Amino acid sequence: MAEVSGPESERAGRRMQAEIAEQPAVFERILGSRRGLEDIGRDLGRRAPRMVLLAARGTSDNAALYGKYLAETVLPLPAGLVSPSSFGIYRARPDLTGALFIAVSQSGRSPDLLTSLQAARECGAYTLALTNDASSELATAAHRHLDIDAGPELSVAATKTYTAELLCLYLVFHAMAEQGTPALASLPEAAAATLDQAEPISRAAQQCAAQRVVVTGRGYSYPTAKEAALKLMETCYLSAHAFSGADLLHGPLAMLDASVPVVAICPPGAAGQAMHPVVEAVRGTGAPLLTVGHGRDLDVVAPDLPEAVLPMLEILPLQRMACRLAVSLGGDPDRPRGLHKVTLTR
Amino acid sequence: MAEVSGPESERAGRRMQAEIAEQPAVFERILGSRRGLEDIGRDLGRRAPRMVLLAARGTSDNAALYGKYLAETVLPLPAGLVSPSSFGIYRARPDLTGALFIAVSQSGRSPDLLTSLQAARECGAYTLALTNDASSELATAAHRHLDIDAGPELSVAATKTYTAELLCLYLVFHAMAEQGTPALASLPEAAAATLDQAEPISRAAQQCAAQRVVVTGRGYSYPTAKEAALKLMETCYLSAHAFSGADLLHGPLAMLDASVPVVAICPPGAAGQAMHPVVEAVRGTGAPLLTVGHGRDLDVVAPDLPEAVLPMLEILPLQRMACRLAVSLGGDPDRPRGLHKVTLTR
Repeated sequence: MAEVSGPESERAGRRMQAEIAEQPAVFERILGSRRGLEDIGRDLGRRAPRMVLLAARGTSDNAALYGKYLAETVLPLPAGLVSPSSFGIYRARPDLTGALFIAVSQSGRSPDLLTSLQAARECGAYTLALTNDASSELATAAHRHLDIDAGPELSVAATKTYTAELLCLYLVFHAMAEQGTPALASLPEAAAATLDQAEPISRAAQQCAAQRVVVTGRGYSYPTAKEAALKLMETCYLSAHAFSGADLLHGPLAMLDASVPVVAICPPGAAGQAMHPVVEAVRGTGAPLLTVGHGRDLDVVAPDLPEAVLPMLEILPLQRMACRLAVSLGGDPDRPRGLHKVTLTR
Repeated sequence: MAEVSGPESERAGRRMQAEIAEQPAVFERILGSRRGLEDIGRDLGRRAPRMVLLAARGTSDNAALYGKYLAETVLPLPAGLVSPSSFGIYRARPDLTGALFIAVSQSGRSPDLLTSLQAARECGAYTLALTNDASSELATAAHRHLDIDAGPELSVAATKTYTAELLCLYLVFHAMAEQGTPALASLPEAAAATLDQAEPISRAAQQCAAQRVVVTGRGYSYPTAKEAALKLMETCYLSAHAFSGADLLHGPLAMLDASVPVVAICPPGAAGQAMHPVVEAVRGTGAPLLTVGHGRDLDVVAPDLPEAVLPMLEILPLQRMACRLAVSLGGDPDRPRGLHKVTLTR
């Protein structure tokens, strides 16, 4: 790893580091004003949609994938991630009567998402926008807007807006299903406790100072794997791959060896059970392994919360790991090369 | 690159090479017996489904993603890729009345796909299985079975079953929409012409003998990018990443530099237009670039066919590239380390 020092390195990653540390407080704020979100959720529930479609890009796309699992299992309704290209590039106009269409975007300014949401609305869908900017075009184009209320995010690498999106989606879908969410009371404290595990995180950052990293998880933890890999790509410029545990066994396992560190997200419950053969197969390749989740013998242990809540915790140490590694490699995760905070794709 | 010689290297990759070369003939065979597929498609169309759900793993999951674009744009219906974990691990049972559920699997033997299809059928979906084995459990569990008729595939790395799945999905969805497919008449010949471009393929293989490769495409060509990356991972053990052109600009662009070759799939038409800013941004990073598709100034040029047909061609030189590169690196793409032809995930 490159050694860096001096004022430049002291500034590098400061914003990202501060925004990572803010997450317990963001959770607390969202939970304090949850009534508004739950009202939206109950209203969506009364509309009795026949399916849920989600559209997003980048980090928010990983939050949308989490939302897809929630829709499929909590509501439960058929759900899909919309390809913005279908509405935008190919101008598809399917009949979306009775569909709930949810666009997720930190900035609310990506033109392809706006096009998709407008098209979905024209095609009969009821539309909801989740953004961190209530005055954005996306927010005003949707039937309903949900402010994720994460506060200004200044680092180009998104962190607190990701976990805020997860929590908002969790609250909305549970309100739609008229299910209580008592487990969330301890979320801010649990987030602080997960972030405090400095030692395994530093060790992991050293382990991952390779060119190639693989992150794997299943079910609700698959979005965690995807988001952790994206953070490592955009801040540390590593080839970080995310695979669902099952897909890893369907081919990419072949590329693992002692030079490719693997981060495995191991929640308790059903998805954690399904990760056992994956972890065993990874061990068989000789790849250095870091385990994050809730259970015995893991490297980073999150508090005991329901499986669907854990993605709000599992990502925290991995964000911190990416930030530290980026700085130690001489980069600035607040301003990665070639990226801007708002990406305008069509 | 490692130099290898002798009988072992002569055998390495022979099956994969032969199966790649078979693809024009497989196309011809499927087109010759297309009436059966089209009958299934017309029957599905008469059922007037309200949405299409697809489930698959590995290479077939890339074919399913292609199917999702077809469903969204040709039918057009809302479509989604099912997470097998939702039905399997979380035992979700959403109301799927009126949904068309399509499972795609070369072997038809993956337990999680079987579980998903059985659950979808119980939940009211009409189910179709696309497999290369008419006697498989998946084939017999579905309402309808469609034999992709690719012939026995012996190499662990799937090639001809992938393109056979694409062609079958194209035929079925167009029959559902009562649209003709005159462009397919020249497909076998076009496939042979695309495969014959040996020189740029060899050059690309040398260029990609790096640890890290990025493959990018948009719309119908995004599945091509994903499948090319999977082939490079499973046969050459490279960290090959696939990104939709839009997603590449939302973060991963930061990881590109002169050490990371990029393969860009550039079809004509709307998706190709959307790839222009992506190709420009990639050029700006100094990454070596290989372009595949249909248009001027590309490295590998496929014949002029409709955009939705091109994925059956674009992947061919990239399969050949992966096979050659694997052998030149001393591997055997017919039997990649740690993999079996049939992967049983739950």
